[in-house]
Amino acid sequence: MKEDAGRQRVIIEGVEPEIDCGRFPIKRTIGETVVVEADLFTDGHDSISALLLYKREKDSGWTEVPMTPLVNDRWRAELRITELGLWLYTVTGWVDHFKTWRKDFRKRVDAGQDVAVDLLIGAELIRGASARALAAGRKGDARVLDGLASDLADSKDPRARIRLALDDELAQLMDRFPDRGFASVYPRELAVKADRERARFSAWYEMFPRSCGTGGRHGTFRDCEERLPYIAGMGFDVLYLPPIHPIGQTFRKGKNNKVTAEPGDVGSPWAIGAEEGGHKAIHPDLGTLDDFRRFLARAKEHGIELALDIAYQCAPDHPYVREHPEWFKRRPDGTIQYAENPPKKYQDIYPFDFESDAWRGMWEELKSVVDFWIGEGVRIFRVDNPHTKPFPFWEWMIGEVHREHPDVIFLAEAFTRPKIMYRLAKLGFTQSYNYFPWRNTRWELTEYLTELTQTEVQEYCRPNLWPNTPDILTEPLQIGGRPMFVQRFILAATLGASYGIYGPAYELMEHLPRERGSEEYLDSEKYQLREWDLGRSDSLRELISLVNRVRQDNPALQTNATLRFHATDNDKLICYSKTAEEAGGGNIVVVVVNLDPNYVQSGWVDLRLDELGLDREQSFQVHDLLTGARYLWHGSRNFVQLDPRAVPAHIFRIRRRVRSERDFDYFM
Amino acid sequence: MKEDAGRQRVIIEGVEPEIDCGRFPIKRTIGETVVVEADLFTDGHDSISALLLYKREKDSGWTEVPMTPLVNDRWRAELRITELGLWLYTVTGWVDHFKTWRKDFRKRVDAGQDVAVDLLIGAELIRGASARALAAGRKGDARVLDGLASDLADSKDPRARIRLALDDELAQLMDRFPDRGFASVYPRELAVKADRERARFSAWYEMFPRSCGTGGRHGTFRDCEERLPYIAGMGFDVLYLPPIHPIGQTFRKGKNNKVTAEPGDVGSPWAIGAEEGGHKAIHPDLGTLDDFRRFLARAKEHGIELALDIAYQCAPDHPYVREHPEWFKRRPDGTIQYAENPPKKYQDIYPFDFESDAWRGMWEELKSVVDFWIGEGVRIFRVDNPHTKPFPFWEWMIGEVHREHPDVIFLAEAFTRPKIMYRLAKLGFTQSYNYFPWRNTRWELTEYLTELTQTEVQEYCRPNLWPNTPDILTEPLQIGGRPMFVQRFILAATLGASYGIYGPAYELMEHLPRERGSEEYLDSEKYQLREWDLGRSDSLRELISLVNRVRQDNPALQTNATLRFHATDNDKLICYSKTAEEAGGGNIVVVVVNLDPNYVQSGWVDLRLDELGLDREQSFQVHDLLTGARYLWHGSRNFVQLDPRAVPAHIFRIRRRVRSERDFDYFM
Repeated sequence: MKEDAGRQRVIIEGVEPEIDCGRFPIKRTIGETVVVEADLFTDGHDSISALLLYKREKDSGWTEVPMTPLVNDRWRAELRITELGLWLYTVTGWVDHFKTWRKDFRKRVDAGQDVAVDLLIGAELIRGASARALAAGRKGDARVLDGLASDLADSKDPRARIRLALDDELAQLMDRFPDRGFASVYPRELAVKADRERARFSAWYEMFPRSCGTGGRHGTFRDCEERLPYIAGMGFDVLYLPPIHPIGQTFRKGKNNKVTAEPGDVGSPWAIGAEEGGHKAIHPDLGTLDDFRRFLARAKEHGIELALDIAYQCAPDHPYVREHPEWFKRRPDGTIQYAENPPKKYQDIYPFDFESDAWRGMWEELKSVVDFWIGEGVRIFRVDNPHTKPFPFWEWMIGEVHREHPDVIFLAEAFTRPKIMYRLAKLGFTQSYNYFPWRNTRWELTEYLTELTQTEVQEYCRPNLWPNTPDILTEPLQIGGRPMFVQRFILAATLGASYGIYGPAYELMEHLPRERGSEEYLDSEKYQLREWDLGRSDSLRELISLVNRVRQDNPALQTNATLRFHATDNDKLICYSKTAEEAGGGNIVVVVVNLDPNYVQSGWVDLRLDELGLDREQSFQVHDLLTGARYLWHGSRNFVQLDPRAVPAHIFRIRRRVRSERDFDYFM
Repeated sequence: MKEDAGRQRVIIEGVEPEIDCGRFPIKRTIGETVVVEADLFTDGHDSISALLLYKREKDSGWTEVPMTPLVNDRWRAELRITELGLWLYTVTGWVDHFKTWRKDFRKRVDAGQDVAVDLLIGAELIRGASARALAAGRKGDARVLDGLASDLADSKDPRARIRLALDDELAQLMDRFPDRGFASVYPRELAVKADRERARFSAWYEMFPRSCGTGGRHGTFRDCEERLPYIAGMGFDVLYLPPIHPIGQTFRKGKNNKVTAEPGDVGSPWAIGAEEGGHKAIHPDLGTLDDFRRFLARAKEHGIELALDIAYQCAPDHPYVREHPEWFKRRPDGTIQYAENPPKKYQDIYPFDFESDAWRGMWEELKSVVDFWIGEGVRIFRVDNPHTKPFPFWEWMIGEVHREHPDVIFLAEAFTRPKIMYRLAKLGFTQSYNYFPWRNTRWELTEYLTELTQTEVQEYCRPNLWPNTPDILTEPLQIGGRPMFVQRFILAATLGASYGIYGPAYELMEHLPRERGSEEYLDSEKYQLREWDLGRSDSLRELISLVNRVRQDNPALQTNATLRFHATDNDKLICYSKTAEEAGGGNIVVVVVNLDPNYVQSGWVDLRLDELGLDREQSFQVHDLLTGARYLWHGSRNFVQLDPRAVPAHIFRIRRRVRSERDFDYFM
């Protein structure tokens, strides 16, 4: 046992947040805070003091924040994230003899006891602080403390001595030079991964660039440039492109995933690699690397960041197959093992063999793909099926990338079992796809979003809510018509600080499946070019623009941390709120959605006013940001009626009554 | 990254039980099992295999138990504790290529696919197992596997090859020689502290030996010997004695805790130490060390173990004060700091200064006190106020003692805040006092006992339920009369596998407090001798004997793990059950207590039949072990009526209908 271990009397346990015993960092974005709590206590009746310690990983010294006791031996303090990268935090605590002495002294005085000896004990404690002040180079403080110690011990006026003993300024001065000789330190340093704001708040638009051509022509990046005003006009800030690399010819899939391609079929962009190159090359029909660079720059001018697809797999024609046969599994007949999910065979895809003896070189090469596109200015990657590659690879790869480029965002496309999805989030993915597409009823949405946003999961997993993807056309969208497309869009955009749609299929309400019971699109862009009539009068474009503006204007919708569900007496009506601090008062948004695509639904919502910080006795204005209508509400229970054929949702901004002498606009 | 770390594809997390990230062991007694669960999964679609590894701490190699998959990536296995001391366990898992191959092979065959190459792959996997068998010195198995590989690869009969591929015996053989080259191992080895049965199941009786004298004479160990048949007759197996050491004279407390003692006052046994000696000496009025030895032996003959009190504090006359002034805090006026809880002063007690520079030597000496009594044959210690001494001391002391004497039981007398009590349990105390004395209503009892027995707490904290102690005469006992004494006794003895009473005060229903609002006894034995009329006709002695026999006869009452509460429609009636495996079928005990000491209460209890393993459609017999009455019950809801003036409780043993041709005694 170390020299002082026996005298470290303060116990520190139950530190939160802490993921898997500190094995993984929690996540925050710049400007967010981390509220740290811990159980601290000691033996006997002594008082203790505690500090939250934090630093950026690279810093040598800790910043110290005093912790405040709550109830039941729980203490709390917080830190604010101000910079990208890794931050560390831990907790220290010690028996505070002066604090104990002061508390006891007050009781003795109140009981009218003789305190002569106690005053001498106090003076000793103050002299100890003086010595520590001196050692810390604070000569002035040391002198002051020495003077106070003498006054306490020797002053002629007994009442002045008692007054001095209990003096607040003395206590504050003593707090500055505590005796931390036997302090306990929590045995783990916990980490925060600090990302940029877009990791938390983003609106994604997925689009196949090859479908931007006109007249049946294969689209190019030049064509995509012309689509930018349309996308920016809807208010999206991330444009995600499926793989832009050369597509294999061998075993190329035909339209609607036919096993054999017809001449002219373009193949799946995820069958990566051909004679023209692999993961670092650009499909010749889309243009050149220079065209890509220009597109990236133009997008930036429109406030749009490009997100590329990282799909670690190869078409049989990929140069890797020739150059690195050791990265692929060979079958006894000498052929390379194609992808399978027996009895299904995917002969157009060779998976990497992550058990290869050459795994280190392969890992480096796979990382270099990401590095290559980072070099071209890309900072967002949507990662295809990460759950089919080993977890240690992702932890290493993302960790290495983030060490150099902490601003890179990785979105995990893992539609699989829950623990696997959460593990990927823990080990480094910035955002995660999730089960939102299949959560439709009020109960399902409430349970799932509560799990995502109100449990430990919210510390490490940032959900990105997609009502559709090129692989997912859910049954409700197939049969629910326009009201369902509107409803699911509003749910995604207001339940999720980050969300995305696959367009133009979404805004044009594309809803035909390849076959009954399938979630695949008929004539899916995954296997063929599509030309979209963006000007259609029934497009959801205007609604999307409006909702994205509302998201921009309301900080409440830019976080998931404050999501709360409120009761309604009609289970077709879901009601939830988000709140945020804002200059000039809090921002409160309450959303009510009619989940029934067919019928008008009405009922009473019962707001948890206390959690919204609203006064039960004051009326408040609810301002519908979709229609502009304003209503005066009072108390927790209020009536709502929503017609799916009109607008099936309210997005209310709550405006509190402001005391003002003017008789107009007195809610803010 | 270590050579194979990148290829260790199985993730192991969420291992349970695990206390504070493995910082503390869980607890079991010999014969109990540990059910270990963990989340295990890998990337992709490969199958995995997993083992629970366990060993006694001293063993070099692990025992391996295959884990079984449950749902949602959860796996389970269990181990049985067969020996005292520390046990370790952890989990390993690996991608099982043969299992994957076999699963896929079946799908291919079912789909009618050509499996020629797959058979060759299977043969390769079998040859790998053959090589591992050979390396393990299993030549015979290796030969068999080689033969099977050849048959699979080369046999002329295609249907025989397929049959062989899916053969169960082949699978079992392959399971014996898996490829664990890239196996993952959970990063922590978790510990189980194995105690003897009495740590789990014990009935304590506390008694002041000095009150065993007659005619106002100070009792001796010889007098105590005569009390043994009385105690054993009631069915107690632990006899706990307050400190038996010399008692200080300086500042000795008088009767009823008066500040000054009268001549002849015996003082508090917790004011330890006088000229005659300290913690290793025996109070001369009780007898000699030889008398103590004889008493210990006599007690053993009666099936009773002695428990001594460990109170680490000194009377001013204690030899330590003279011999080791460095172990005590000195005040500026040169006096030694007595115990205080300002404004209260305890001048008869000097606490040890655990911040002393001489702490190591002091720790050793304090431990030597326990070692001394262990040397005399004592194996149970009730530790006084452990929460006023540092946690690291207890962890060290108990750890050191248990290393040599794993059969020692420490009961922590810490009546303080919950996290402190739980920490003491975690760091080594075998049993713990708790809030039972102050949990009286159905809601309070249900909430608290559920916390103690159905949460993680039950892994490390063994509650010992005391309805009274010399310091605790609760208000309900003061005012509730005999029904309350009976009720609280039955609750303690059936809710707790371990419980205790302070007698003869309890069985004689001593109920007068020193003053209104106090929980102290009037004329407390803590400060004076008492003579008890053990033969009083209203003594609870017979009831106590009966309940302790019921506890002995019913394994269900010897554990807390299976405690379940059942609904009643009258909140004055509490209903709970315990179950245990037993030769010839499960042992099920259902207890119903009327919590109202004044009035007859009746109502319906609603048993959770499924949890009791009872058939909803079959009637069953409930046999009241207190009265001998038998009732036939049917279904979950049954009527109960209890009169506090008669017996305010049922202790039912459930007897299931046994199919038998005889027409009598067909429930067992």
